[in-house]
Parts: sequence; structure tokens; C-alpha cells
Amino acid sequence: MTYCVAMSLHEGMLFASDSRTNAGVDNVSTFSKMTTFEVADGPHQRCIVAVNAGNLATTQGVVSQLRRRALVDETHILNTPSMFDVAELFGQAIKTAISHAEENQLTQSSVDFTCSFLVGGQIRNEAPRLFQIYPQGNFIEATSDTPYFQIGESKYGKPIIDRVVRPETPMAEALKSAMVSFDSTMKSNLSVGLPIDVLILKRDHLKPSLRYRVTEDDAYFQNIRKAWGQGLRQVFQGLPQPDWFHH
Amino acid sequence: MTYCVAMSLHEGMLFASDSRTNAGVDNVSTFSKMTTFEVADGPHQRCIVAVNAGNLATTQGVVSQLRRRALVDETHILNTPSMFDVAELFGQAIKTAISHAEENQLTQSSVDFTCSFLVGGQIRNEAPRLFQIYPQGNFIEATSDTPYFQIGESKYGKPIIDRVVRPETPMAEALKSAMVSFDSTMKSNLSVGLPIDVLILKRDHLKPSLRYRVTEDDAYFQNIRKAWGQGLRQVFQGLPQPDWFHH
Repeated sequence: MTYCVAMSLHEGMLFASDSRTNAGVDNVSTFSKMTTFEVADGPHQRCIVAVNAGNLATTQGVVSQLRRRALVDETHILNTPSMFDVAELFGQAIKTAISHAEENQLTQSSVDFTCSFLVGGQIRNEAPRLFQIYPQGNFIEATSDTPYFQIGESKYGKPIIDRVVRPETPMAEALKSAMVSFDSTMKSNLSVGLPIDVLILKRDHLKPSLRYRVTEDDAYFQNIRKAWGQGLRQVFQGLPQPDWFHH
Repeated sequence: MTYCVAMSLHEGMLFASDSRTNAGVDNVSTFSKMTTFEVADGPHQRCIVAVNAGNLATTQGVVSQLRRRALVDETHILNTPSMFDVAELFGQAIKTAISHAEENQLTQSSVDFTCSFLVGGQIRNEAPRLFQIYPQGNFIEATSDTPYFQIGESKYGKPIIDRVVRPETPMAEALKSAMVSFDSTMKSNLSVGLPIDVLILKRDHLKPSLRYRVTEDDAYFQNIRKAWGQGLRQVFQGLPQPDWFHH
């Protein structure tokens, strides 16, 4: 499995993805699930960030396809004028990669070749935009009502983000909620694991303000894991006991 | 969907189930998902509690079948000497009900006829025992390592129970964790709803010590929902911000 979250806030965008992949429980490896497409200057200046969940071969196929097309096609991910076009390019690449994988299987296996992406970023002369792209190739865009998306093993880590994140939430606060959300997810699901890749893209900077990898040794992450667990236990202890149950 | 939890503790057993059923989003009704089978005295004295998730017609079929068999069969749920036999009777009844439903469908519909149960209780001369029974009819038993089971929409409400519940946890504490667990689940999933049926079965009492229905008006539940939310926000505010991200 996987856990990825992306948020579109007034200050800018935040992306975080775990990096554990597994086929069954004994074939576990580390692969980053975060990809960037950047043009550093000029009229096509942009910073696009994608995080992915699902079949590793398919997701790598999607990224390779988009990079290869940027060398040969006239319109591609490095020069389209809008993030909407970027979402469409991802959608097409996902459909192509999945149907290619499904057509080529040797036997009727039960392998799931699907994948999904969260794709966001900013292109010069456009506002930052964030999309969730489905295995079917269609997509939805984040709004001020729903400023964040999750893919993969999303349920354990959803409550804290639901409680904290609004478009006006300061970036540092949102980042903290993402870290707590990863802690909850990793506590309950073995298939989501460190390191966590984090990328922050401030509005109108058009390049990453932070690229950071949270590893096992990260003192901050260790610290909030412990503090959050202790804090939860304290709040729980402080809750009253049901007045309708007596020993 | 559904959310049910059952715990087997040193003090006794706790069962809690929501009561929302839905076919799609516009056919929503209230049905209790908790059933008891009781023999009040005599050599077969027992109190057995079942909570269920899955297809409502199938779960009702399972319960009806077990009650009907208790009138005609020689060995049945009201006289078997062990909870293990009760789990087997449930397993058989589930398999029968599901295959009956599947055989009788008029067309190849996509209806899911499966269901699962948590079944626990105590029979005179035996310790309390708790089982999770799968749609396939097989089952697992709770142990001191894993003293609780959940069925239905279980992920949102799992972290708090994981953090709190051990076999030695006092019943009032376990009940509190169940209430917080339902709050988290209902916050994130519309298909789980009030009222919540709660039943507590103290060890060796062989009859319920508490049967309670938590409704919208329950002051205690309203109170802990609010206090838990506020407490979480306070703990979150108190966590430090990442030292590797600066504005």
C-alpha cells in the first residue's frame, strides 16, 4: 500500500508521500512515490508535483511516458499553458499504461495494474491547482471546500486532517497535521512506512521551497509521534465515564 | 455500512453496534444490529450476544434460522455446551443464508449478499468467549493479545481502541474508548449512525449487566464528542512545528 496526501492552501501547496512498496509481505522495498516536473524559467516556467499510489510498474510507466513525450510531442507536460492540461495528460497516460499492462498479461492473473495520482503545482500566469486523477483517467480538482486529497491507505490518517486543514491554515500547521496523519496511518498499517518525502511549493515561487525526507532518525518526527500519543492518552483519561454505567 | 465492536476483557464483555442501514444514500433506515440468545437458568444457562455487518436480509435470515432450529433440532444455540459450538452454528447458518440468497437471485445483479458477525458470551461452566465469524463460515477467537474485534467501517475508529484496550482494561474505560471510537467513525463516515446499542456482560453473571441505547439526545455522548474534539485540537496546538521548515 501507500499513503499520500496533498493540500492546496492560501500559502501554497504541500505534498507528502510514504515510500514503502510491497508485493505481499515479504517483498518490501523503498521507492519514492513523488515526482517533479520543473521548468526553471522562461515563458513555460512551472513546478508540477505528482504523488502516486497503486501498481509500481504502472506508475513508473506513466512518469516515463510523460517524460518521453516531452521530448517528441508538440504539446506536453513541460509547455502546456494550464494545470488542467497537465491533469488531462496524466489521465491519458494512466489509461494508456493500465490498458497496456492489462493487454500484455500472459495469463488471467489477479494482479491489479491500476494506479492513481495526486498532481498539483503552478504554471506561470496561473494560480496553483491540485487534482486527483483516477485509474479511469478522469479527475477532480481541489476547492476551498475540500482543499486536500489523499490516496492509498487514507482512512486512519483522515480524522486529524479533517479537523485541522482549511485553505487559510498556515503551512507550518498543515505540515504538522500531515506528520500526525502519517503517524496514525503507520501505527495501524504495516504497508505504509518511512521515509516520508515532503515537498512544499509556496504560491508564486514556481519552485520548491522545501524538499525534505523524514527518516527513522528524524528527531522532530520521533518527538511528535511520542507527544501525540501521550497527549491523546491524557485527553482520553480526562474524559468523563458514562453516567449510565455503574460498576 | 455498519460499525460494530466487541471486546473480551477480564471484567467481562462489551458489545456496541450502530443501527444505520442503507441501500445507496437515499434508502436509509434504523435497524438494530444486535441480537441476544438467552437462557435464564438451568443447566443450559447462557447469554450469547451477536452483532452483525453486511446484507440486512442475510443477517436477519441467519438469526431467524438459528431461532427456528432451536425449536426443532436436538443440538442448537440454546443448549450446546460450548461457545465454540455456537460459533460453528453461526458459521453454518451464515454459509446457508448466503448461498440461499445467491442461488435465488433473479438476474446477475451486483448485490453483495455476504455478512459477518461478532458472537460472544458465556455458557454456564465455561469462560466467556468471543468470536469473529466470516462470510465463509470460518471463525477466529479473541485472545489476550487481541482482546477485541471490529466489523464494518472499522478503520477510523481503530486507533483509539488500539491505544487503550488491553484484557485488564477496566470496563468503564473500555466503554469510554468504544464511545470515542464511534465518534471518530461517525465523523468520517455518513453510513454509520446513531443510535448505538451497547450491551455489557460481566464475567460469570450470565445475563446482561447493561443494555443501553445511545441516542442523539444522550448528554454523555454529546459531552465526550465535544470534549474529545477540543482535547485533540489542544494537543495538536501544543505539538512543536517542524524545525526543518521555516517560513
